[in-house]
Amino acid sequence: MLYRVNMRGLTVTKEDGSSYRGLGGRALTTRVIGTEVDPNAHALGALNKLVIGPGLLSGTGAPNAGRLSLGGKSPLTGTIKESNVGGAMGHKLGRMGITAIIIEDVPQDDKLYVLKVDMQGAVLEEMSELKGLDIYDTVARLQAKFGGKVAIGAIGTAGENKMTAACIGFTDMDGVPLRQAGRGGLGAVMGSKGLKAIVVDDAGAPLVKFADEAAFRAGAKKLADALLKHPVTSQGLPTYGTDVLVNILSEAGGLPTNNFSSGRFAGANDIGGETLNAICKERGGKTGHGCSPGCIIRCSNIYKDTAGNQVTGGFEYESVWSLGANLGINNLDDIAVMNKLCDDYGVDTIEMGVTLGVAMEAGLAKFGDSKAAIELLREVGKATPLGRVLGSGAAVTGQVYGVRRVPVVKRQAIPAYDPRAVKGVGVTYATTTMGADHTAGYAVAANILGVGGKVDPLSSAGQVELSRNLQIATAFIDSTSLCLFVAFAILDIPEGLEGIVEMCNARHGWNYTLNDYLEMGRQVLREERAFNTKAGICDDADDLPDFFRTEPLPPHNVVFDIPREELKTLYNF
Amino acid sequence: MLYRVNMRGLTVTKEDGSSYRGLGGRALTTRVIGTEVDPNAHALGALNKLVIGPGLLSGTGAPNAGRLSLGGKSPLTGTIKESNVGGAMGHKLGRMGITAIIIEDVPQDDKLYVLKVDMQGAVLEEMSELKGLDIYDTVARLQAKFGGKVAIGAIGTAGENKMTAACIGFTDMDGVPLRQAGRGGLGAVMGSKGLKAIVVDDAGAPLVKFADEAAFRAGAKKLADALLKHPVTSQGLPTYGTDVLVNILSEAGGLPTNNFSSGRFAGANDIGGETLNAICKERGGKTGHGCSPGCIIRCSNIYKDTAGNQVTGGFEYESVWSLGANLGINNLDDIAVMNKLCDDYGVDTIEMGVTLGVAMEAGLAKFGDSKAAIELLREVGKATPLGRVLGSGAAVTGQVYGVRRVPVVKRQAIPAYDPRAVKGVGVTYATTTMGADHTAGYAVAANILGVGGKVDPLSSAGQVELSRNLQIATAFIDSTSLCLFVAFAILDIPEGLEGIVEMCNARHGWNYTLNDYLEMGRQVLREERAFNTKAGICDDADDLPDFFRTEPLPPHNVVFDIPREELKTLYNF
Repeated sequence: MLYRVNMRGLTVTKEDGSSYRGLGGRALTTRVIGTEVDPNAHALGALNKLVIGPGLLSGTGAPNAGRLSLGGKSPLTGTIKESNVGGAMGHKLGRMGITAIIIEDVPQDDKLYVLKVDMQGAVLEEMSELKGLDIYDTVARLQAKFGGKVAIGAIGTAGENKMTAACIGFTDMDGVPLRQAGRGGLGAVMGSKGLKAIVVDDAGAPLVKFADEAAFRAGAKKLADALLKHPVTSQGLPTYGTDVLVNILSEAGGLPTNNFSSGRFAGANDIGGETLNAICKERGGKTGHGCSPGCIIRCSNIYKDTAGNQVTGGFEYESVWSLGANLGINNLDDIAVMNKLCDDYGVDTIEMGVTLGVAMEAGLAKFGDSKAAIELLREVGKATPLGRVLGSGAAVTGQVYGVRRVPVVKRQAIPAYDPRAVKGVGVTYATTTMGADHTAGYAVAANILGVGGKVDPLSSAGQVELSRNLQIATAFIDSTSLCLFVAFAILDIPEGLEGIVEMCNARHGWNYTLNDYLEMGRQVLREERAFNTKAGICDDADDLPDFFRTEPLPPHNVVFDIPREELKTLYNF
Repeated sequence: MLYRVNMRGLTVTKEDGSSYRGLGGRALTTRVIGTEVDPNAHALGALNKLVIGPGLLSGTGAPNAGRLSLGGKSPLTGTIKESNVGGAMGHKLGRMGITAIIIEDVPQDDKLYVLKVDMQGAVLEEMSELKGLDIYDTVARLQAKFGGKVAIGAIGTAGENKMTAACIGFTDMDGVPLRQAGRGGLGAVMGSKGLKAIVVDDAGAPLVKFADEAAFRAGAKKLADALLKHPVTSQGLPTYGTDVLVNILSEAGGLPTNNFSSGRFAGANDIGGETLNAICKERGGKTGHGCSPGCIIRCSNIYKDTAGNQVTGGFEYESVWSLGANLGINNLDDIAVMNKLCDDYGVDTIEMGVTLGVAMEAGLAKFGDSKAAIELLREVGKATPLGRVLGSGAAVTGQVYGVRRVPVVKRQAIPAYDPRAVKGVGVTYATTTMGADHTAGYAVAANILGVGGKVDPLSSAGQVELSRNLQIATAFIDSTSLCLFVAFAILDIPEGLEGIVEMCNARHGWNYTLNDYLEMGRQVLREERAFNTKAGICDDADDLPDFFRTEPLPPHNVVFDIPREELKTLYNF
């Protein structure tokens, strides 16, 4: 069953959703966008759609199955976009038996609306009084109205202002909007549709039905056992969070520092997971915090200031990097303030940190000057001309300020792993349908962490195959509602992967093999690529900015040297 | 003979240029960029080049052969770019026997340089004292130093600031910088190279040699006769200038008004060529002013204020439209001020007018408010954050302000003919290798002016073939140094076209047929398209923004309805 919400007519219609049956998460959002949206459409116009899709395992008790996919044509990249997010909403939608919510068209006035979804149905409510509120205040107002148990996804002023770095913030299990559908500007798409928030209340929802409940439980146990056994998912991530990667990447010479000028940051330890863990302990914060129902990895955290007040949380490696090392900033408290501002305005931390790095390269602030960085970020909240530029992301900021070293692919900021020193993920950045995105094929695992085999990060050999296999598997995982971090376990423990196959089959009454599910992943990539091609972005756009090929990265003094013709073979499947 | 200027080493080397022999103008700049520049290069980086190339007939006494081609990878569009310009320089370079000047790499400091080219050679001179000067002041300083007879091409502050709407201003025969290599941001490329100006002194240059001087003269006479006979080139353009088109296009319902919201402007007559002519007469200005040596069309003008002081000149239809009708402004004096500001800062008038239209759509000023428009334009000169946004062009301004109706193709502003009501030029906008560019295939001739046949502008029939033939012919004309306006005559008077063929053959000792020269045009298009494809911009990028397909244009209430698959057939040659 799906809801189709038309923002011009302010109508909600319920459909049986049979044309999208058997699809979940990214496979679903990609199919809807690929089928229903003209690739030539302006991403902020009437022809684009915003699709919200739980995954194949949403609403079940599967371990770490709380992710929710959001899809649309990206106003940042011009490509198709799937951005997925933790928090509480995915599980609820799964329990409610909702396949998708499709937000269509644009309103005829400048009022703001909230979509309320519960077991009675879905309704649009005008709430223009939320106009101009950022995400924390918006959530507080909605919780006052709808109660603390609802799941909320909302945009801040960045989304209202249609800034192309705008994300959508989602509440976690504590009702705090710590989780973001961050990348690709889907917050601006939501803003263009006059939709301030989606509120989901699953009170009264029945338990999810299984084709074979016993088989499902057996599969779930296999995955849970793998997660509890693998050192990354059972020890590293719960203890230190994803921020454990700061020291690892800096040591490996792949931590982009000062706008991708070095791969090693002298201040790495000041901002790494070990320090974060110590600060959380000292101030009464928390590590080992789960972001969504059923999470047994618990890599999230709660970060407090010296007075013991919560500053931020869900404080991820990529955010600490982008707002820290990438800006030459080694003060975790200042980075926490920036992380909170991003979450509150509703802008992607990766895009914003890279943007600030470009701004620093342009001379708007000095690398290392965290006070200046915070002031720049506040411009985004004020929506000044400068703030709007920054809120438009790194590509626009680079163009506006005439900067040559702009780390983007398909106009999306390159994340926290320098592609010169972690070449497998460089292949992913260059070739994924999403614009630069590490999650699309996290070759860091085999390049740096020794998970799923070992591929020398500095060599060009084997990287395309590595990235290809990961991109295919990821497109499937992104369709299940499983957190991508299950990959750490299943890449090394085959029983974990078997468990996923068994759960999907047992949930839906299928008899698919692993290869059938990988074929689902391949099909997702094919559909996404077809959309991008029709949007005018062809395979020759699959490359990195020239400076990665010409400017050696210290300390290893390496360049990205995988020829474009070899990159083109990624889609040979 | 060509000069290769390296801005890193600050060296100039003279080469025999044999690898580019037989090429001129656009064929030359396209070949150099296609051969020597990596399509993946950042347009403002060390790997891009700026090429200056006179045409096959430059330096001769051929009628209207004063155009000069500039080429590079465009920082605005990401495509290959040829921008051509009138003024005095092309003729001089032709007389001096210079095939090309190729500006390479970027400087290691932030000093500014001037390239001086004379019969003794070419030298770089540091003139950082020109920093921060706009084009009129820059030209005045250089004329004080080098004398009034040199030809100058210079950037203003926009180019120095690497704004992607930056043009390069060139002096005309009076030494006034009224002519611009306007489109695609080549001024920013020049700025990225630390080159403030190029000064050309042809004193002592010999007369151009001909393989067959008598045949050349005979060919020249044929073209001259055609130009003096055709009513457009002998009457309309000399009397009213290109601005004669305002009333014609408004009458035809194809004059984009208020950011492409209507095709008819109530104030058309206030700003059209008839009014401009009357004002010039009344105030002691001038129409029938030639912009480059050998011009017998003389469509340029000198526009004075009520006190009799020159405000601007070379006041073209496209500028009057972009800064006038497109903004709902019907005050020619205010438009003249804006035209002068654009010429002085060094920004493309088309890009800026369309950008201001987008800014007005975003609510930064009201349509029709010329004072507010002038103030917005002054921000560009001040390089404030807002000014930098506007100076980055319409696509960036639209993104920064979340505007849906952004009239660009490949991120370049759509010029002065609404593609819904002049569908042939709509095909050109969508398909040309240049981003939206009317000059690449001026189907307005057959659509509106009844020149070169008649193709109904409102019908989709025949437009692709019309545009294809014009794009091929134009690529050849752009390679000769001939002004594109000769096309008005030769489309209707076959002897004029014969004259061009005969002149090219007689100048170079060739025995080519018209079809050989058209094949040169086809080859230019193939090379440009190959560059763009390698830059990641494929044939599916050949389309118009969605609103042209969905939003009917008054008064005819037409949409652009030529299917993309039909557009793709343009390159079937």
